[in-house]
Amino acid sequence: MRQEEAEGAGTIFADFVAGTAWADVSAQNHEAKRSILNFFATALGSANDPAVTAALRTLLPFSGTATSAVIGRSERLDAMCASFVNAISANLLDFDDTHLDTIIHPAAPVAAPVLALAQARGFSGLAVLTAFILGVEVECRIGNAVSPGHYARGWHITSTCGVFGAAAGCAKLLGLTAEQISNAIGIAASQSAGIIENLPSAAKNVSVGNAARNGLFAALLAGEGYSASPRAIEGPLGWARAMGDAPDLGRLTGGLGKTWEIAKNTYKPYPAGIVFHAVIDACFNLRTKLNGCTGDIVSVTVQGSALLLARGDRPVRNERDARVSIHHCAACALLLGTAGVTEFADAAVFRPDIVSLRQKVGAELDASLPDGAARVIIRLASGETVSEIVMEAKGSLADPLSDRDIEAKLRDCARLGGTDWDIDRIIDGVWHLDKLADVSTLMRAHG
Amino acid sequence: MRQEEAEGAGTIFADFVAGTAWADVSAQNHEAKRSILNFFATALGSANDPAVTAALRTLLPFSGTATSAVIGRSERLDAMCASFVNAISANLLDFDDTHLDTIIHPAAPVAAPVLALAQARGFSGLAVLTAFILGVEVECRIGNAVSPGHYARGWHITSTCGVFGAAAGCAKLLGLTAEQISNAIGIAASQSAGIIENLPSAAKNVSVGNAARNGLFAALLAGEGYSASPRAIEGPLGWARAMGDAPDLGRLTGGLGKTWEIAKNTYKPYPAGIVFHAVIDACFNLRTKLNGCTGDIVSVTVQGSALLLARGDRPVRNERDARVSIHHCAACALLLGTAGVTEFADAAVFRPDIVSLRQKVGAELDASLPDGAARVIIRLASGETVSEIVMEAKGSLADPLSDRDIEAKLRDCARLGGTDWDIDRIIDGVWHLDKLADVSTLMRAHG
Repeated sequence: MRQEEAEGAGTIFADFVAGTAWADVSAQNHEAKRSILNFFATALGSANDPAVTAALRTLLPFSGTATSAVIGRSERLDAMCASFVNAISANLLDFDDTHLDTIIHPAAPVAAPVLALAQARGFSGLAVLTAFILGVEVECRIGNAVSPGHYARGWHITSTCGVFGAAAGCAKLLGLTAEQISNAIGIAASQSAGIIENLPSAAKNVSVGNAARNGLFAALLAGEGYSASPRAIEGPLGWARAMGDAPDLGRLTGGLGKTWEIAKNTYKPYPAGIVFHAVIDACFNLRTKLNGCTGDIVSVTVQGSALLLARGDRPVRNERDARVSIHHCAACALLLGTAGVTEFADAAVFRPDIVSLRQKVGAELDASLPDGAARVIIRLASGETVSEIVMEAKGSLADPLSDRDIEAKLRDCARLGGTDWDIDRIIDGVWHLDKLADVSTLMRAHG
Repeated sequence: MRQEEAEGAGTIFADFVAGTAWADVSAQNHEAKRSILNFFATALGSANDPAVTAALRTLLPFSGTATSAVIGRSERLDAMCASFVNAISANLLDFDDTHLDTIIHPAAPVAAPVLALAQARGFSGLAVLTAFILGVEVECRIGNAVSPGHYARGWHITSTCGVFGAAAGCAKLLGLTAEQISNAIGIAASQSAGIIENLPSAAKNVSVGNAARNGLFAALLAGEGYSASPRAIEGPLGWARAMGDAPDLGRLTGGLGKTWEIAKNTYKPYPAGIVFHAVIDACFNLRTKLNGCTGDIVSVTVQGSALLLARGDRPVRNERDARVSIHHCAACALLLGTAGVTEFADAAVFRPDIVSLRQKVGAELDASLPDGAARVIIRLASGETVSEIVMEAKGSLADPLSDRDIEAKLRDCARLGGTDWDIDRIIDGVWHLDKLADVSTLMRAHG
């Protein structure tokens, strides 16, 4: 087939999204619920974070009719503003889900607008699950097509690809035609933004929140007749090439409906960058070996891939730094034997014993180790050394969190987030989402 | 100075914006008013365009308190929604102002949010002019630093750079501190978006509208404490490099406050792509030479640079195509002797005599001609040929529109846009903008 005769990716995705029913995605039901439960966990955990409160202060004068919940709080906003705020809170702790092939955090930009829109319109849980699964599929496939160059070049892939997932999911939820869905995806391409340089700052939240808000906006505009190029993603002056990549068309749309990206979703046990999880697990094992006698530690050497060093060998000045610090992850895990939300809060960052142990941690390249693995070597005052290697961290596809682990994570987050929402209701509601006639019964503090 | 010691561009811009007062920019007063008058002309011309009406239908349920005018219409919206809609209408006809070094249309993304915010807060005309001049300065300097690669790579530079100008202008208007202004500019970097592939569709409007809306949003968030990297523009994983360019730091911030980009602004006499203006002028001259006897034309050959051919050698199916078609521009200018808004509307696109003459037009490369110039050669039934060359089109810096020309353009646009706003009031109000105590008196239909 000649290039100019091939269908645009927007058209192919749109036909797929329009033509897919619950029966076609029901095998993904359980993983979708796990993703949404993890989404609630992280959103509840940051419900009262200053970045969320500041976003609310900014948006309250700019919200239309308040149809949709701010998760974990009493305020309501219109569906677009609520999408923005809930995506921020779900992503703020770097504790959300991870699609390992791309390092996209799939749920925040897709679940936030799908739930906010469904609440505003009284849509069912089945409609939400279908839209969410399809949105994640489009989001992660577009990410696959430009990985790994896209992220390496400076694009915050959760933001830049999230807007496509939000557009596709919301377009499905609105019952748009295939042509309108193609337009929504194309409009998303003109709104895709977000840079790595801003990751250590609140500007990161803006691109994540916009991905959610603008994906919904794209679907609403497409529903009102706005059009876009069917080649907005892969065309010669389109999104992928402007962003710096020759898109891999096979990974973009090949085998649609046969494989499911949501099946590759993972959930973090620790609120730190995913590459640090093996460091934490290795330190837990070493702590056990040492029977907790960490006072004898002279030095800690963390070995890993170039990615681990690039992401995590840095000074620690605040919470955001701590969550992407080899030194802080190792010190907490060794000293405290735990690495939850508390261990990455400011109080832990400045604890003298943690500061002291952090200073004993060094990082070294071991190019033979794959991304996601780590070796930790401890030298003791006696001269003895002990070491541990972890190839597949807890939370990876090889060692996934159980359903109970995710529930426990949600309870832990909700407690630390200081929300008064009824947590048992949320957990029960998500596990029974496919039975909910109107999802708005889930999106509130109490029954 | 070592790289890591150099100040970030965000800091340099912010110090400049915070430290600049009316006295420092008052020499730009007249050109700023011309830009704003031209902004009103194009916004009024598209006030009732279906793309504006559809955007309004989409946004009305999502607007907070309706503080700000939709230019040329009776509806009001909150300042963020009004920024979006007014930037769309100002840019829709491809008839807005042009910064020739970058092909940025400076006013739409900057004037729309500055005026909408000023109306909401009751700010003065002097405050608006100061903010507008500074916003355009930041917008065009960032464009300079990445031109010409940025546009050529697929980025719609009015959208991608407009958001910075909107952020800087609104931050100035809000009276933010230098640190907050730096944060607003950095937040804008995480919202910069918009691709060329979508230019022939309504998705283009979305990136232009978002540039205006999101620049204001960046300033509001910065005012509430949101932060960003001071190197968001030029940092190693920042905006310019992610977008594909090594930024030219000299063009970015060199000579700030000594030269003014707004002094290089130009205004189109014809609602077509700027590169086609020389084609139209040459055809006007030929029409005079032929005494209007266009029935004898056998063929029309348009010669110009590679840019002219790349932008304009295409089939014409609708208004959007017509405005970027060598063939349509030449046919209208030869046949009708005029090239206003009417000549690029659907009625003209499908007129049989225009269609017929369009088919006789061919385009040829003449690499010796600079961008913006054109030669047109007509062969007549008699075998005779006549030709004209135009090096500097009407509306260029060498042959600018007069103040009266811009007024006449505004009246022409307003008539075709079907607005009931009092046009004399707008023209008078813009020429006296520096005397207006509260700009909201300008932002309404009648006195």
